[in-house]
Amino acid sequence: MFEYHIDGTTGSARAGTLTLPHGEVRTPAFMPVGTHAVVRGLSAGDVRRTGAQIILGNTYHLHLRPGEAVVGSMGGLHRFTTWSGPMLTDSGGFQVFSLEGLRRIEEHGVEFQSHIDGTLRTLTPERAIEIQWQLGADVAMAFDHVVPGQSSFEAASEGMERTLRWLDRCKARHTELAGQRGSGTAGQQQHTVAPPDVESTAPPPRCPAAPQTLWPIIQGGIHDELRLRSLEGTLERGPWTGLAIGGLSVGEPKAVMHRILERLEPVLPEEIPRYLMGVGFPCDLLEGIARGVDLFDCVAATRNGRHGTAWLPTGRLNVRGAALKGSTEPLDPSCDCETCTTYPRGYLRHLFIVEDILALRLISIHNIRFLVRLGEQARAHILNGTFHGWSREWLGRYYARGD
Amino acid sequence: MFEYHIDGTTGSARAGTLTLPHGEVRTPAFMPVGTHAVVRGLSAGDVRRTGAQIILGNTYHLHLRPGEAVVGSMGGLHRFTTWSGPMLTDSGGFQVFSLEGLRRIEEHGVEFQSHIDGTLRTLTPERAIEIQWQLGADVAMAFDHVVPGQSSFEAASEGMERTLRWLDRCKARHTELAGQRGSGTAGQQQHTVAPPDVESTAPPPRCPAAPQTLWPIIQGGIHDELRLRSLEGTLERGPWTGLAIGGLSVGEPKAVMHRILERLEPVLPEEIPRYLMGVGFPCDLLEGIARGVDLFDCVAATRNGRHGTAWLPTGRLNVRGAALKGSTEPLDPSCDCETCTTYPRGYLRHLFIVEDILALRLISIHNIRFLVRLGEQARAHILNGTFHGWSREWLGRYYARGD
Repeated sequence: MFEYHIDGTTGSARAGTLTLPHGEVRTPAFMPVGTHAVVRGLSAGDVRRTGAQIILGNTYHLHLRPGEAVVGSMGGLHRFTTWSGPMLTDSGGFQVFSLEGLRRIEEHGVEFQSHIDGTLRTLTPERAIEIQWQLGADVAMAFDHVVPGQSSFEAASEGMERTLRWLDRCKARHTELAGQRGSGTAGQQQHTVAPPDVESTAPPPRCPAAPQTLWPIIQGGIHDELRLRSLEGTLERGPWTGLAIGGLSVGEPKAVMHRILERLEPVLPEEIPRYLMGVGFPCDLLEGIARGVDLFDCVAATRNGRHGTAWLPTGRLNVRGAALKGSTEPLDPSCDCETCTTYPRGYLRHLFIVEDILALRLISIHNIRFLVRLGEQARAHILNGTFHGWSREWLGRYYARGD
Repeated sequence: MFEYHIDGTTGSARAGTLTLPHGEVRTPAFMPVGTHAVVRGLSAGDVRRTGAQIILGNTYHLHLRPGEAVVGSMGGLHRFTTWSGPMLTDSGGFQVFSLEGLRRIEEHGVEFQSHIDGTLRTLTPERAIEIQWQLGADVAMAFDHVVPGQSSFEAASEGMERTLRWLDRCKARHTELAGQRGSGTAGQQQHTVAPPDVESTAPPPRCPAAPQTLWPIIQGGIHDELRLRSLEGTLERGPWTGLAIGGLSVGEPKAVMHRILERLEPVLPEEIPRYLMGVGFPCDLLEGIARGVDLFDCVAATRNGRHGTAWLPTGRLNVRGAALKGSTEPLDPSCDCETCTTYPRGYLRHLFIVEDILALRLISIHNIRFLVRLGEQARAHILNGTFHGWSREWLGRYYARGD
């Protein structure tokens, strides 16, 4: 369980197979984001048909609604959502640090105001792990201190060092919960593990029906030295079954993100998967894969879909555009998704014009399939040794219109 | 083509098979409404999986967006929507007479203001037929003058008599178009039939790829005498391959609708299907079937679905209700729809709470399947001779909570 096997490499690009309790994930792979235990507007079946192998849930959002106790009592995220494949939950760190409202950061944890009802809540490393334990995804993420993309060395250093200290606490709590699970009372049993965080009114954590692993997150902002120190500190606290790179694609120039990935790549452990959080757009996937990244997630596929922007091999297309009126062509003739193999462009445009929600679904399905397929194509080219030439050509075509 | 075969009867209730160019329809049957060439929020595949056999398109809405010329140039409604089964279009009469804005009724036709852009448009019997010809559904409806549910004898009489005079014009235009189609230039050919209505800037009507039939509409408001006169006048103008009863369920008491159906039933031709327009709710289906109705349409299934109201054998359920929180039960354990066989109630409620559009889709799917299945069950009981007892029991259970 939680094994990662390298199936082939081309330069720094890797093709692998990650084995998780709910199935295998062939990498490189894009993970659609199911913020509220739903990939916006899509059924689990829709997502499955895009070829997505693993989806992501947001701990912050699920803690607020419906609450981890509700999800846990219904048998965990898999049963709740009917998504039977692998799942990963983020730790809530990114959301809490992105909140507009009141927020107080202390060594103990973060006090924040719910964006739903304004109530004050506290998230600590231990609570983040307990919530994820109740949600029951295959992979839980450590609770991290994320700083804005252009933060100073000092601010980025503070966040990175705190992330390491919090990692100790996350690991301790996760080990404790997993140990209880292993002690013979696992499965569907309720446990009386008192949460150390008295703010919580949630019932005691419930074991996930299947084992869960914990992945740490590398921080350090845009400062190479801090990134390397973060990786070093993280590996000292290992071993890990996977590792994430956080705090990128948060406002810094793309070239900076590429440079950091290039600095980290030679010192990343080869034998575990690398997950670049919150990335990306189509081009980001290929740039990340070239720099040794295995897993990606991003809401852009569904967000763009809802706004009527479709990704095509030749760049972006506004599906509301008058040019599509009356067109009997598929959205993307080279695509095998449900939308492209079923509906004419003229109908997709019409759905946006009359504001039918089917439009949002159909473009989201295409955009997700577009990224999933990009992962599949990259994998095939890595195994074939043709990744870099193909990727260069692909990016050239995508950028040709100046997007 | 356009044949109707009676498979069995129980009292006035009929089970039949209607043969249309795009397939067969086993009756009694509910037709989901695809106002804008889409059953609100559902893909053609979603609708197919509900077991729906025929769907309805709205001439008024499709004339405004995207326009019949666009649909026609893309190969008609079937290709436009990817719904390959039977389709019916209404004539636009009901919508035009329901409009809030400016509207001027003359013998020639109706001048009205588009609810989209405020432009003045004219719909005449001939235009309504030409638009439907370009849309290319299996069944087109005659352009009728609908009066409000509680209209006086005089007002209802005027609308009914005008509907008969307009029926002559509809039939003449439809016969003309169908004759041209039959003259050897049918199929994908464009015709240069000049529309007699100079207001129109649409290109000449295009033949549907398959034959199309025209059904008349009985009017007469809540006045039995006028209803019988409408039927008599309509039959004099026949023969017809089907017949609709319009202007009901527009504000009059249910008992009045039932009385009118009972007065019409003995004099309706047995050998053609009867379509009760804009009806209904679950109870209306059973009450209509008992009084000899074969086809129904109504937006209530999808409208209620979007508002979170699900139909169950025990009455209506508010899917947002707190009672559903954490429930692992299916929405309706007796239902075989995609929603009920896949998702737990607690997840459906969660989708409404976080305002994900998947909620709207899933409840709409259930509600449509609920009506489609009610038609299937009624058919089985009619063929089995057990319809009336079953229907009485069903209605008793549905109404037990006082809905």
